[in-house]
Amino acid sequence: MNFNTILGKRDFLEYLRGKKANFLLSCSVTNTADIEGISQAGIPGKMYLTPTLDAEFLSTSEVRSLDNIATTPKGIPTPAIITRAVHELRPFENIEFLNLGLKIIPQIDYFKRYDFDINPSDNIECGAKIDAMTVFQKGVDFAQNYKPNCEYTILAETIPAGTTTAAATALALGYECKEYFSSSFKNTPNNIRDEVIKKALNNINENMDIFERLSNVSDNMIIFNAGFILGLQSTEHKLILAGGTQLASVLLVVNSILKTMGGQIDSSKIALCTTKWIEEDKNSNIKALLQLLDFEVNAYSTDFDFSTSESEILKLYDSGEAKEGVGAGGSLVYAAINGLDKEYIIKKIESFIGV
Amino acid sequence: MNFNTILGKRDFLEYLRGKKANFLLSCSVTNTADIEGISQAGIPGKMYLTPTLDAEFLSTSEVRSLDNIATTPKGIPTPAIITRAVHELRPFENIEFLNLGLKIIPQIDYFKRYDFDINPSDNIECGAKIDAMTVFQKGVDFAQNYKPNCEYTILAETIPAGTTTAAATALALGYECKEYFSSSFKNTPNNIRDEVIKKALNNINENMDIFERLSNVSDNMIIFNAGFILGLQSTEHKLILAGGTQLASVLLVVNSILKTMGGQIDSSKIALCTTKWIEEDKNSNIKALLQLLDFEVNAYSTDFDFSTSESEILKLYDSGEAKEGVGAGGSLVYAAINGLDKEYIIKKIESFIGV
Repeated sequence: MNFNTILGKRDFLEYLRGKKANFLLSCSVTNTADIEGISQAGIPGKMYLTPTLDAEFLSTSEVRSLDNIATTPKGIPTPAIITRAVHELRPFENIEFLNLGLKIIPQIDYFKRYDFDINPSDNIECGAKIDAMTVFQKGVDFAQNYKPNCEYTILAETIPAGTTTAAATALALGYECKEYFSSSFKNTPNNIRDEVIKKALNNINENMDIFERLSNVSDNMIIFNAGFILGLQSTEHKLILAGGTQLASVLLVVNSILKTMGGQIDSSKIALCTTKWIEEDKNSNIKALLQLLDFEVNAYSTDFDFSTSESEILKLYDSGEAKEGVGAGGSLVYAAINGLDKEYIIKKIESFIGV
Repeated sequence: MNFNTILGKRDFLEYLRGKKANFLLSCSVTNTADIEGISQAGIPGKMYLTPTLDAEFLSTSEVRSLDNIATTPKGIPTPAIITRAVHELRPFENIEFLNLGLKIIPQIDYFKRYDFDINPSDNIECGAKIDAMTVFQKGVDFAQNYKPNCEYTILAETIPAGTTTAAATALALGYECKEYFSSSFKNTPNNIRDEVIKKALNNINENMDIFERLSNVSDNMIIFNAGFILGLQSTEHKLILAGGTQLASVLLVVNSILKTMGGQIDSSKIALCTTKWIEEDKNSNIKALLQLLDFEVNAYSTDFDFSTSESEILKLYDSGEAKEGVGAGGSLVYAAINGLDKEYIIKKIESFIGV
């Protein structure tokens, strides 16, 4: 299995080849996910459970807060199965959880969970009601006290409707990027999403500063991790943003903050790693999103897909469903630089769903 | 390869997935092993050599204090071959030896051996003549100065006739568990063993305190490691007790000491890991033994067996010979949480015995 360079040079990943990584999963709920048809990352009416179940499955291979593994209404299992398979075959140094507004605490012992007294955010149609400055500062503080036993961290997310809040965030900050954002659907529900984003943007005005805008239209995952990225700058620790357009949106927030506040970033310590399905997605454009940044950033994907799988359910990923989440793309990159074969990963994933 | 949960939840092992472990082998001799027919863990008349040879083979793949690998009279090789295979495929952080009364010092350079001025214990038929309080305290002291470079330790044992002394120990402390103890034989030699245990128990009386009882009927492996477990409580270090009913007996000693002295234990830092052959053994009951404890403890096994091996000798394990020892069960659990395949381990073991 190989990785592909979307932006930058191979060297960042080559340097990390064979090194262990800490895996941080940002778990968050935005009530935007309650809007009917906005996301398929979970069970309709119970989207708030998805990050809880993803955390449980990733760490223990069991879902404990529900009877069965979370799937979309079409039966597509969560991308957590990809990350879990990689972890079983080439374990991460640690898996740790950031509670960025969970409704239900995962039932897991031993694994570290960081709590920040952050609540689920509201539906952005009516204003997310986040204290963005405080959440951002919590991300900065966390990074400054973060001392993992390894050279780099894979930072991932699980937040249903997160691509909608990510798009609203970037638009609210003035980026021209409406067509660049992905979704968990093969065919993005543009009518519903456009309507939600339009309503969200109606709640901001041009007199608002960055943090006021974020408070209205963003989510805790994005705001906290913008702080985390900047807080880590004082260390030599390297960071893989494991995700697609949502993690790109985190970088756009960082970019806006730096522009407003006049700061600098050493972006050579950062890379975004995503799936082939995101890179090749016709309905979004991860590369174009990253090129909106005023700094350069490395970005990679892998050639992993389910073309040789016997599972029709898994092949739905190849046709554009689900695509990314729970650090699937970053995990596959981790697999690639740790000598794992594609077929070996596919067999492991198939074993989870009983193929 | 997967692990099975006998008691507790998966989380303890899931947390340790991919992490390196220190491997501590408790090497001890009880002259109880000289009783004809009591054990098949070695060469008749030379049972005292078994821990020496196990230490040599485990660390170097050579037996140096004898011409050939230690086998039972039926030709079954020591379970050290299982632990050695796992170590070759996914090496432990370190292998270190506890000299808890060896007769012959293993001929090994570089590997750390801890000496405690402990002598082989006597045949429990006539009283083991152990200064149990001193040996226990040595275990406590060792634990308090034990600073490995990793998050957990796999603690194993090699002591022929150890299941007999383990059963006598538990019975002398008043546990109702006569039928729960395993042996290295497929068909436990109950007549011989019952006789030995009966004689041993005749040497204790109800006025004796715990340590007086242990001094008479136990062995240095059990007493030292009861101290080791309690000494480790002041640290965050996690411990896998790699063995079957003998390690369960260590926990029963811990339990009795806590009850008598009124202490507490955080048993969430401890798990017992054993083989499928112990878990499924009809002549013993590891789960029932652990359920005699007043605290809860995690316990696991793996699905490893030799059903797909081409070796008739190895298949004797599947029919109930040998079963456990030298940390075989704990090593297989280590293999399972470090992504090793069963077939890969079997091939390695076969290579040791020339299949």
